Amino acid sequence: MTGRRQGDHVAGVEAIQPIAWAESGVRVLDQTRLPEEECYLDLRTVDEMAEAIRALRVRGAPLIGIAAALGLAHAAAAEAARGGLAPEWIERAADLLEATRPTAANMKWALTRLRRAGVNAFEAGASASEVAVALRAEAARIWDDERRRCRAIGEAGAGLIGDGATVLTHCNAGVLATGGLGTALGAVYVARQQGKAVRVVVPETRPLRQGARLTAWELAAAGIPARVVVDGAVAAVLAEGKVDLVMTGADRIAANGDVANKIGTYGLAVLAGAHEVPFYVAAPSSTFDLTLASGREIPIERRPRAEVQAPATAEVDNPAFDVTPARYITGLVTEHGVIWQPLAAGIAAVLK
Amino acid sequence: MTGRRQGDHVAGVEAIQPIAWAESGVRVLDQTRLPEEECYLDLRTVDEMAEAIRALRVRGAPLIGIAAALGLAHAAAAEAARGGLAPEWIERAADLLEATRPTAANMKWALTRLRRAGVNAFEAGASASEVAVALRAEAARIWDDERRRCRAIGEAGAGLIGDGATVLTHCNAGVLATGGLGTALGAVYVARQQGKAVRVVVPETRPLRQGARLTAWELAAAGIPARVVVDGAVAAVLAEGKVDLVMTGADRIAANGDVANKIGTYGLAVLAGAHEVPFYVAAPSSTFDLTLASGREIPIERRPRAEVQAPATAEVDNPAFDVTPARYITGLVTEHGVIWQPLAAGIAAVLK
Repeated sequence: MTGRRQGDHVAGVEAIQPIAWAESGVRVLDQTRLPEEECYLDLRTVDEMAEAIRALRVRGAPLIGIAAALGLAHAAAAEAARGGLAPEWIERAADLLEATRPTAANMKWALTRLRRAGVNAFEAGASASEVAVALRAEAARIWDDERRRCRAIGEAGAGLIGDGATVLTHCNAGVLATGGLGTALGAVYVARQQGKAVRVVVPETRPLRQGARLTAWELAAAGIPARVVVDGAVAAVLAEGKVDLVMTGADRIAANGDVANKIGTYGLAVLAGAHEVPFYVAAPSSTFDLTLASGREIPIERRPRAEVQAPATAEVDNPAFDVTPARYITGLVTEHGVIWQPLAAGIAAVLK
Repeated sequence: MTGRRQGDHVAGVEAIQPIAWAESGVRVLDQTRLPEEECYLDLRTVDEMAEAIRALRVRGAPLIGIAAALGLAHAAAAEAARGGLAPEWIERAADLLEATRPTAANMKWALTRLRRAGVNAFEAGASASEVAVALRAEAARIWDDERRRCRAIGEAGAGLIGDGATVLTHCNAGVLATGGLGTALGAVYVARQQGKAVRVVVPETRPLRQGARLTAWELAAAGIPARVVVDGAVAAVLAEGKVDLVMTGADRIAANGDVANKIGTYGLAVLAGAHEVPFYVAAPSSTFDLTLASGREIPIERRPRAEVQAPATAEVDNPAFDVTPARYITGLVTEHGVIWQPLAAGIAAVLK
């Protein structure tokens, strides 16, 4: 395949719309039904959006921030139309959305922006319907900002990917996770658009198989060769010596550079280090939580045991995330470029 | 629970019969249907046994050695009853069984013993039915030997497990894998019989979930607390600092101590080392292949892509095993006791 052909193919992945404004709600692609079915849901209420986020119909740290913002803004407009949009309604709605999933930083970040937009509008004497318009404008800005950040992350990350490189990722940090071009996969897509040949090793990512189900599906849409392996095979794949770099997304990054991401990321980072393969984490600034000194303070969501399908006689522990200490991370790929070691100093310098 | 109570519980696991002689064939517990159904199959022919081994109805390196031996012996008796048991029949049957699964050493070891028993009987002028009797006697001895080895491995391994210890294992190296008390789990069972409190962390072990399906089921029968986690969670579990040792089985061990075992074992060994947790491999001498200088020479079975359930657009790599270099292994637990580093010297001294 020529470089041009590869670039064309990436257009296929850019056409995926995991989220959109619709007349009758916020339209989301139900990711629990991929890749078998492309099913869209129009979510009207805050409760419906909260359910969709909790059930992982909409997932990925940047995307759930966007989804929460769009969902709140859409429901606020309906509330205003009923004449009832009060500051307390916005607070309650934001609290409810924030409680759905505790680990990702982006949801809190997005909802803080919406809360502020609401307060500012009310304080400026806006009517309920004017407040709803302000909320919608802020939600749209959040989405636009995140899309631009993905593009910038993709450009920065693509600089780390050589022609003919094999990238190992984990879970899904692509279009489906961000509402933009993706973070870790954004770097792969931009590299491809630049004419580089790229292949991706895709760990299945149990329990919900978001690598095998979502990343493999995205890469097929992009025309990029994907090789799916079970999570237990990543060490053997690294030992083959054919992986040039590992790049994952993130759900929350502490001030010292510790990264919370999908369960399995920490082991992957240690194994990459043992095989002298660079390990990068790609994430927008909205994923950083500078109020936390280290990853030890990041709350780790425990998901239902049913996801693991173990026999009823066994105890099940189903943490959705783990924390990778900063020392295992070669660099953080952000919209401001790559932050190299020491990460804490770089984060402080770049993100203030 | 008191020590006595724990010992009583282990009787529950000793009652599991993954293999048995039956009138109408070799009776095997169909492990593909566990834990939902306890379904037994009477396998009459070499083809039926080969299918059962290939489809993993019977699995576990020591058990497939025993199963191949019992299956060949049973079919040989039927062949003799038809008046047709010739040396070539035994060779063909052994070749067919050996070709089912390439990685485990035990099947070749067991079938070499049967081939020799057949040749010796023919050379001694035995009739077809006498040869069949000799084959059955040899198969029974193989099974007895392996059972005794499991018990001795259990005793040696239990010495490594302190009262109140948490053992992390991988896949299934118990009664279901051996036709005896197990290897890695044998050590857990003997520790329990000695009155020690033991807990086991059970990685799910994709793709066929033999940890979640088989090990969790065995441990429930033994009354031993089991905690099932997805494979990606083992690094986070090790980071918690509550795992005292890792112990797995093996499918083949080379002369230098390199170990082939279920995919994921190598990563687990590296991660155990990174967390300063001892990593043991428990296996009978029948698992050692001293004709191989290192693990690089061990053939790694690739299983069907359907086991991974990836989308049709993706390439799938489904190696059933990986190789753990000897340097990651704290000790090898055999029926002759624990072989410590340097493993190559210990193996040479103990196994000649």
